[in-house]
Amino acid sequence: MGEFDLIARLAAVLGDPGPGVSVPIGDDAALLAPDLVVSTDLLVEDVHVRRATSAPADIGWKALAAAVSDLAAMGAEPVGAVIGLALGEDWTADEAVAVYEGVAACAAACSCPVVGGDVSRAPVLMLAVTVLGRASEPATRTGARPGDVLAVTGTLGGSEAGRLVLEGAVPPPPDEGALAERHRRPRPRLAEGRALAGVVHAMLDLSDGIASDARRLAEASGVSIDVDLAALPVQPGVAAVARALGREPGAFAATGGEDYELLVALEGGAVAQAGVPLTVIGRVAAGPPDVRFHGPGADAGLAGFDHLAPRS
Amino acid sequence: MGEFDLIARLAAVLGDPGPGVSVPIGDDAALLAPDLVVSTDLLVEDVHVRRATSAPADIGWKALAAAVSDLAAMGAEPVGAVIGLALGEDWTADEAVAVYEGVAACAAACSCPVVGGDVSRAPVLMLAVTVLGRASEPATRTGARPGDVLAVTGTLGGSEAGRLVLEGAVPPPPDEGALAERHRRPRPRLAEGRALAGVVHAMLDLSDGIASDARRLAEASGVSIDVDLAALPVQPGVAAVARALGREPGAFAATGGEDYELLVALEGGAVAQAGVPLTVIGRVAAGPPDVRFHGPGADAGLAGFDHLAPRS
Repeated sequence: MGEFDLIARLAAVLGDPGPGVSVPIGDDAALLAPDLVVSTDLLVEDVHVRRATSAPADIGWKALAAAVSDLAAMGAEPVGAVIGLALGEDWTADEAVAVYEGVAACAAACSCPVVGGDVSRAPVLMLAVTVLGRASEPATRTGARPGDVLAVTGTLGGSEAGRLVLEGAVPPPPDEGALAERHRRPRPRLAEGRALAGVVHAMLDLSDGIASDARRLAEASGVSIDVDLAALPVQPGVAAVARALGREPGAFAATGGEDYELLVALEGGAVAQAGVPLTVIGRVAAGPPDVRFHGPGADAGLAGFDHLAPRS
Repeated sequence: MGEFDLIARLAAVLGDPGPGVSVPIGDDAALLAPDLVVSTDLLVEDVHVRRATSAPADIGWKALAAAVSDLAAMGAEPVGAVIGLALGEDWTADEAVAVYEGVAACAAACSCPVVGGDVSRAPVLMLAVTVLGRASEPATRTGARPGDVLAVTGTLGGSEAGRLVLEGAVPPPPDEGALAERHRRPRPRLAEGRALAGVVHAMLDLSDGIASDARRLAEASGVSIDVDLAALPVQPGVAAVARALGREPGAFAATGGEDYELLVALEGGAVAQAGVPLTVIGRVAAGPPDVRFHGPGADAGLAGFDHLAPRS
């Protein structure tokens, strides 16, 4: 069972949410009339984070940042968050407080106050974060048009490279500290999302890697997408990590999750006017929904992170 | 570590959420200006529900119902819900779909469409449900006044009695079916909550039992509360279950969680005019926050359900 398939089946069970909901299940966030967006994100110990490589405060930061990134992807301004904390059996109250210190730091950095929550026991730590935001011009995944270019903010591959460095899977590269920080404390692209919302045709955040997320964009917009792996803006230090594993840097960056950059489709002429630094990485074409990768590593069968796949 | 203590410590870490939030952490739901309320609820396998006694669809129903009950307690009308589904290791996709059939049935019954979600793997099933609602006259926990009476909607103790019957802990009473249904498919008191919101001084829903929830009311309002256990409206069949365990029915009903009735403080003269059947069960007095129980079983040291306490 894959994550995409299960979500499709669950959405079918739930059916049409009715006239008040203009962007239902499948986008980064739901849009509740007239401008209220809401999104929810799970962070589960040993699926999304490991205690061996992230401090409790880092885990709290990341849980809120991942959810706020969905607001960024809608071009929304945060209003507030609620958090369900399932405290793992071997977590102490002091560690739970440390998790919330990270949550509070991210809340301050993102101007997204935590306004409520719930707590329970569980076998492992789980944080369920729901964020609310306001978007006057919400950007969705559905508007990519044939002829658009595909572009991203920032750099890619850093979070996955940071994870591998922290887990000791590769020799530490010179950029070790920046890669670890990228993995532990991702920064949602809120300002960029708001600036881009009025310019782009479609937008989503890169939570699972372009290999998965470009497919989501292709399916939501009903378009075919070509991605040039050699054009991906790979974060410094990522190439060394990829090569230590015998992989091409572009392909590595396309499959690494949790970069939380924004992936957009827009007119080629609008890239320079977007007011946000963007790197063009591909093209949108007519055709059945599909993503084709080109360049070094494209023959390897790229897949992004699937939260339902068995873990090695 | 108790649930109350941990929540207080976490709220302290998060600090003041700022001027846009008029009912912050500690009430049933947060109020985001001007009339938007939001609340989140966790349901964890083997803490809140067990597969041996609840079908997957029952579990889905209950997860949403518990969250919607917090909207009822604010006097709010549901707008929509988002759901984080962490699928336990031994749960199949078909079972996940069955969970969502229960979610969808409750969503239809409560007019609360599910508008988004997230999925992940986890060691056990966890559902994190966040609900949004609108309340023109939101009722909080903070307004109980000395001289008020304390009253409840409906009947109490049924969910806990149903759980014990389903687990085979007691001989099946004649009302077995109704008790099991009460445990498996609780009904949020939405219409009652909206009717009461304009009448009562304070309101909350009974999720953990009056022994816990009356204390929450006393602390939030800064009042002393007297509860007459003999006055509790015990659901038919509950007395037989309580006596089979050697317990007094009123004390049993005060400590059983998940009835999802509404507990309110209001002027005595308003009870008959509330437009909702209420049972007066106690009195509000001036004094340091405290709850005193009177009547049969009051000497037993009553405590409601604590989601952080070790499970037997």
